Amino acid sequence: MIDTGKLIEFLYEDAPFGDITSEALIPADLCTSAAIRTKEPCIIAGLEEAAFLFTHLGAVADATVEDGARVGAGSVVMTIAGPARAVLRAERPALNLIGRMSGIATATRAAVDRVHAVNPAASVTPTRKTCPGLRALDKKAAVIGGGEPHRFSLSDMFLIKDNHRAIVGIEEAVRRAKAFSCYHKIEVEAESAEDAVLAARAGADLVLLDNMTPEKVSETVSALVAAGLRDRIVIEVSGRVTAETVAAYAGSGADVISMGALTHTVRNIDVGLDIT
Amino acid sequence: MIDTGKLIEFLYEDAPFGDITSEALIPADLCTSAAIRTKEPCIIAGLEEAAFLFTHLGAVADATVEDGARVGAGSVVMTIAGPARAVLRAERPALNLIGRMSGIATATRAAVDRVHAVNPAASVTPTRKTCPGLRALDKKAAVIGGGEPHRFSLSDMFLIKDNHRAIVGIEEAVRRAKAFSCYHKIEVEAESAEDAVLAARAGADLVLLDNMTPEKVSETVSALVAAGLRDRIVIEVSGRVTAETVAAYAGSGADVISMGALTHTVRNIDVGLDIT
Amino acid sequence: MIDTGKLIEFLYEDAPFGDITSEALIPADLCTSAAIRTKEPCIIAGLEEAAFLFTHLGAVADATVEDGARVGAGSVVMTIAGPARAVLRAERPALNLIGRMSGIATATRAAVDRVHAVNPAASVTPTRKTCPGLRALDKKAAVIGGGEPHRFSLSDMFLIKDNHRAIVGIEEAVRRAKAFSCYHKIEVEAESAEDAVLAARAGADLVLLDNMTPEKVSETVSALVAAGLRDRIVIEVSGRVTAETVAAYAGSGADVISMGALTHTVRNIDVGLDIT
Amino acid sequence: MIDTGKLIEFLYEDAPFGDITSEALIPADLCTSAAIRTKEPCIIAGLEEAAFLFTHLGAVADATVEDGARVGAGSVVMTIAGPARAVLRAERPALNLIGRMSGIATATRAAVDRVHAVNPAASVTPTRKTCPGLRALDKKAAVIGGGEPHRFSLSDMFLIKDNHRAIVGIEEAVRRAKAFSCYHKIEVEAESAEDAVLAARAGADLVLLDNMTPEKVSETVSALVAAGLRDRIVIEVSGRVTAETVAAYAGSGADVISMGALTHTVRNIDVGLDIT
Amino acid sequence: MIDTGKLIEFLYEDAPFGDITSEALIPADLCTSAAIRTKEPCIIAGLEEAAFLFTHLGAVADATVEDGARVGAGSVVMTIAGPARAVLRAERPALNLIGRMSGIATATRAAVDRVHAVNPAASVTPTRKTCPGLRALDKKAAVIGGGEPHRFSLSDMFLIKDNHRAIVGIEEAVRRAKAFSCYHKIEVEAESAEDAVLAARAGADLVLLDNMTPEKVSETVSALVAAGLRDRIVIEVSGRVTAETVAAYAGSGADVISMGALTHTVRNIDVGLDIT
Amino acid sequence: MIDTGKLIEFLYEDAPFGDITSEALIPADLCTSAAIRTKEPCIIAGLEEAAFLFTHLGAVADATVEDGARVGAGSVVMTIAGPARAVLRAERPALNLIGRMSGIATATRAAVDRVHAVNPAASVTPTRKTCPGLRALDKKAAVIGGGEPHRFSLSDMFLIKDNHRAIVGIEEAVRRAKAFSCYHKIEVEAESAEDAVLAARAGADLVLLDNMTPEKVSETVSALVAAGLRDRIVIEVSGRVTAETVAAYAGSGADVISMGALTHTVRNIDVGLDIT
Repeated sequence: MIDTGKLIEFLYEDAPFGDITSEALIPADLCTSAAIRTKEPCIIAGLEEAAFLFTHLGAVADATVEDGARVGAGSVVMTIAGPARAVLRAERPALNLIGRMSGIATATRAAVDRVHAVNPAASVTPTRKTCPGLRALDKKAAVIGGGEPHRFSLSDMFLIKDNHRAIVGIEEAVRRAKAFSCYHKIEVEAESAEDAVLAARAGADLVLLDNMTPEKVSETVSALVAAGLRDRIVIEVSGRVTAETVAAYAGSGADVISMGALTHTVRNIDVGLDIT
Repeated sequence: MIDTGKLIEFLYEDAPFGDITSEALIPADLCTSAAIRTKEPCIIAGLEEAAFLFTHLGAVADATVEDGARVGAGSVVMTIAGPARAVLRAERPALNLIGRMSGIATATRAAVDRVHAVNPAASVTPTRKTCPGLRALDKKAAVIGGGEPHRFSLSDMFLIKDNHRAIVGIEEAVRRAKAFSCYHKIEVEAESAEDAVLAARAGADLVLLDNMTPEKVSETVSALVAAGLRDRIVIEVSGRVTAETVAAYAGSGADVISMGALTHTVRNIDVGLDIT
Repeated sequence: MIDTGKLIEFLYEDAPFGDITSEALIPADLCTSAAIRTKEPCIIAGLEEAAFLFTHLGAVADATVEDGARVGAGSVVMTIAGPARAVLRAERPALNLIGRMSGIATATRAAVDRVHAVNPAASVTPTRKTCPGLRALDKKAAVIGGGEPHRFSLSDMFLIKDNHRAIVGIEEAVRRAKAFSCYHKIEVEAESAEDAVLAARAGADLVLLDNMTPEKVSETVSALVAAGLRDRIVIEVSGRVTAETVAAYAGSGADVISMGALTHTVRNIDVGLDIT
Repeated sequence: MIDTGKLIEFLYEDAPFGDITSEALIPADLCTSAAIRTKEPCIIAGLEEAAFLFTHLGAVADATVEDGARVGAGSVVMTIAGPARAVLRAERPALNLIGRMSGIATATRAAVDRVHAVNPAASVTPTRKTCPGLRALDKKAAVIGGGEPHRFSLSDMFLIKDNHRAIVGIEEAVRRAKAFSCYHKIEVEAESAEDAVLAARAGADLVLLDNMTPEKVSETVSALVAAGLRDRIVIEVSGRVTAETVAAYAGSGADVISMGALTHTVRNIDVGLDIT
Repeated sequence: MIDTGKLIEFLYEDAPFGDITSEALIPADLCTSAAIRTKEPCIIAGLEEAAFLFTHLGAVADATVEDGARVGAGSVVMTIAGPARAVLRAERPALNLIGRMSGIATATRAAVDRVHAVNPAASVTPTRKTCPGLRALDKKAAVIGGGEPHRFSLSDMFLIKDNHRAIVGIEEAVRRAKAFSCYHKIEVEAESAEDAVLAARAGADLVLLDNMTPEKVSETVSALVAAGLRDRIVIEVSGRVTAETVAAYAGSGADVISMGALTHTVRNIDVGLDIT
Repeated sequence: MIDTGKLIEFLYEDAPFGDITSEALIPADLCTSAAIRTKEPCIIAGLEEAAFLFTHLGAVADATVEDGARVGAGSVVMTIAGPARAVLRAERPALNLIGRMSGIATATRAAVDRVHAVNPAASVTPTRKTCPGLRALDKKAAVIGGGEPHRFSLSDMFLIKDNHRAIVGIEEAVRRAKAFSCYHKIEVEAESAEDAVLAARAGADLVLLDNMTPEKVSETVSALVAAGLRDRIVIEVSGRVTAETVAAYAGSGADVISMGALTHTVRNIDVGLDIT
């Protein structure tokens, strides 16, 4: 269930007027087989998309593992057979997709593992700080890595931030959001424990604790417990959470930890294609 | 000279059915002013693209510095005025663009500075390991950071790699490429000094030394000098060059250092929008 | 915040090779002024979109009322001035948009009024039975008419229907949905009061009572009250609710009444353009 | 000969970020079979388009009747087999297409039947009051229902309306249209029998009698007969013709009756998909 | 009333990754003025489209003559002012459009003039042998040159050719076409005078005499006159009519002469842009 | 490796609302077979694109020769089998593509043959004067005909023309281009032998001698030889080179002869489709 139109665009972005090297050097009817291999351990992702690229150009591509598998360095994750020109033309777009998506999946999985070691009930999620044009694929990769997707866009959840609160107060904001739609969750950004209690009491579904220390998060959780509102609200923490600090937040009592870095600072997994 | 169609797509990706929070909370005729501010020192990029997004939705956006400026933390780089709904709807796509492009420009500039400290004549360049769909913007950001663009796609340069050489030898490959087009440069990937000499003698314009140590690069340069071919060819080194190792390569005698990490492993610069 | 690309497509759909009548009969530099007038009372909608069409072709269009206004028959809702060819070319696409969107807004408002007469706290909403390609505009029109938007697509809410329940039971289904995302609401289709209680207990946010009589809905509400779960869940009724039956459902204790007919069986409001 | 690009857009409109319910609940490799069944008697249409949607997502879809067949309530019109996720993702867009197109085909057929009962030589046609973006499919559905397509767009026929006649008189308008193209028919909107005679004498191919009573139409026909021009011109009547009044117009001597309501006020046929 | 989306595509086709020469050599803020000048006499066309290209990139463009004007060699047809980079980037796409469209307009005008010298009532028209993707612009250019547009596509006229007649005879074919739509003209390809008479009698609007000599055309006209059908049908001749032979056909009694060469074998008019 | 999206657009350009003739006359399930045949000798091109069009509509198409083959008049170049409606709908777009691409290939081959008769080492190339929207196909056709592709767009080579030189001198321009990218060739337009020597000395890769007579070209070559720079630079001549004059330029010592006419003044090869 991939966006085939967008994937085809990626192919033409990489060769608007064809692959001149292959056209000059490789006979049109020369066939070859190839393998895509990881160069480092990772959670693999992007195989479905990569396979489409080769297939669209007339080659046959078979994933040898499933998206989401944990694989070691040197693992073959896909085999390909077909016209050499097709294989070489799809190579770079395919590797770019696998590299980025596996990078996101692997980083998400690492964060989830750190969180679960402390609190198996807590979860990890990216934000809307995705690569322009790649929102759906970035989110998909995070889910493959064991994360939640968070809101996909401005259309699928209310998130009442300080800019909105400067216009209307928390209670009125929640009331208006509820009146607008009962089909979409309401999250309120809270700058203090008092805000969080106010939001929960107003009927928000989630509260976002942004840029708080783990200690401050714990205090806010306690305030919600004291007010008898803890069960009514999901607590999200965010704000430059890193691989180093994520465990501390996991122990603070929050339900979800959102990490912009999962998608805004991706380290691509190194994968390569070898002609076999 | 920005791709307006693609930028508009980024807006709709972030709100396929509108911004429900703003629609529920903010009157349509409420106007506001805002500023985009850096949260860390950087080479700023993406301002032209960001300004278009706000403008397209009916706000007025003015960059206060030019793309490529070196700015400190806390610098205002753009001021915006217009309908609050428009400002908030364009906010995230605009920040995602500025964040990524500034991240690439800043990393490129840092690498260029390290290289120039050793060899002012050498240059730095990204590869085709860009984000799918963002090739032009990733390349533009690297150029803003002082890098060269390298080839944009498979259509604008011959790059004869091992996969091609498995089919035809270096000399025949260069001959075929020359016969195909005298308007496009020919680069040959060399695995040894012998390969490099062979490529230069065959008339290649550039030689790519992939995954060699700086010492091995120096030896290859020496071999080209000894063969009287040094002036006829541009020497590119590549292969997981990092911020740490780039200076060593700069001193090896190479002309250009290509770094996939400049675009495949981007750390977004942290920028924020404040309503003023 | 309109999808300009799609609106431009509507213009070219109506004249892929130009407007031959105007080209044959009307000088290119002849200017005119015109007015769009309703032919029946309605809640007007689509003015923002219509204005864009005229503007894109070089005319000036001014809405004289706002989207959502209740207007009588014969009301002028927009005045236009510009090249006669532009006015006539945008005429039909503009009227088609205003006609359909006003039809949806008017029908929604009528349903809302009937519902509020019985239960001012209940609301009305369309479904995903929209016109292919017009999802965002159909939903926007319903909101203009006082309705809620319901889920926009398969991406923004969980709706666990009988087809899903044939695979997993209600409790396990809700558990999996919660594990997938805490950012999206969960609705369960219930075929009986028992189902509804089960869903509420499992933690669903909404329950969908499909094709029940108003009496059966009341019994289900009572069952939820008896189980102490009424406050934890939003109750939606659906299933060929019509203008005639909607009041009965409004009195049944449900919170939201969804009506596919609001968008799948639209009666366009009659509007016309007169050259003035 | 369907517009595959547009149909794919309909799929992504309904799930810009995937179908979260299915992804959370249904294993990727679970296959299923399903049937699309009518819930009321109708002339079925849209099967070719619906089949493409399922096929594009990897399922197999077989229409069990042909577009245009008259089917009763409860008829299976398509069987589908494939991955459950694919079946559920295409379900709503497919049903929306079948529902609307069958609605148009059925209403057209009903009008045609009423007309033919009075005058077997007369025909029925929709106008350009179609749903934006669906012109081709709306017209196709009307043809499936036994109607004529009328002009598809401003590009394929001259229609000289009062707005044009305010600029040039009928005779000069027809002369200019003929000079512009002899490949496209010329229709003149007539407000009186005199206009109709004038138009026919000037060489118009069709005359449009808008908003006349059936009696007034008969008088106009008589005037054309008296002038010896009846055979030279096709007579179209239009203007809020309804199911109730269409038979009266059929007996008035007109050749074609155009009904905007066929496409601007569609009642979707109720069709459902059941997992089998 | 130009297709702006397509024109923007032409700009990006010519610079998918920017104009590297201008970016390397020309400061971003350098402004310039320029003029587009013909290098040979012609009927100018394409100015509206060209002006849009410059405008879209931020320059100001003013046509100094109107599309359709007859201009001599060395005439300035457009002046432009704005950023030098914008002017140079739009230059080639703009000149390609003006060159091709003026080429078509000029050739059409020449053919029309030759025809009118012999028969002022006859007209000239191109066919569907246009450049893929440029149908609307090719037809527009022919109309600017004084031609008729002929059918724009398969959707706007019936043309019953030998391939169709192999399936059904002329009379039945015309009958079916009439039954399908009374809004679209019917043309029948005739291979003999008998065919032409048969077609006219069956009610065809036009008859296409393909690959007949002028003498054979005259005979066919005479046969139609003899049968009393001449006034009921438009006679088109086609089939490799050239500038040399067009006058002979004009004298044969035909009403329209279609020339595929007008659009399938275009000689671009030479136009250039000079920085002033 | 064809741009399938663009090819599909060509199909819909030719039938935005379907092929009314075939729909009226030909049963949907009637199958047929057909052959595409040349009507004059040519170098055939466009077969890959044409085959896709038929295939996309559900027919089977087999090229009986390869793109680039030299074929005589009356040669069958493709056979097709499938639904008659599909065959007739793809017919014209397919023939338009084959006609244009074969026209370009044939003209290029003729020019190459004339050049090689004089100087087997020289080559022929088109320019950027291609049909808007068809750049890639026009270039591909020229390559099929034995030409070089020249630069594809403003993104893949530096070409320093008089407009640039009015801003910076040759030496500085070459220096800036080199500093911008070592991956793209640099060509300098020279108006005199002195310019050419200056460009070669500055390090340009190619020099463009525009609108020089063959004698003047020879003098420039001599000047480069005298300066010891002949081997360092590729010499291109351009400027309304025609089939008549190309041989003279081939003997002048230039390396490449660019001919705008190859793509801006195409004579389509006449090809037809016959139902068999």
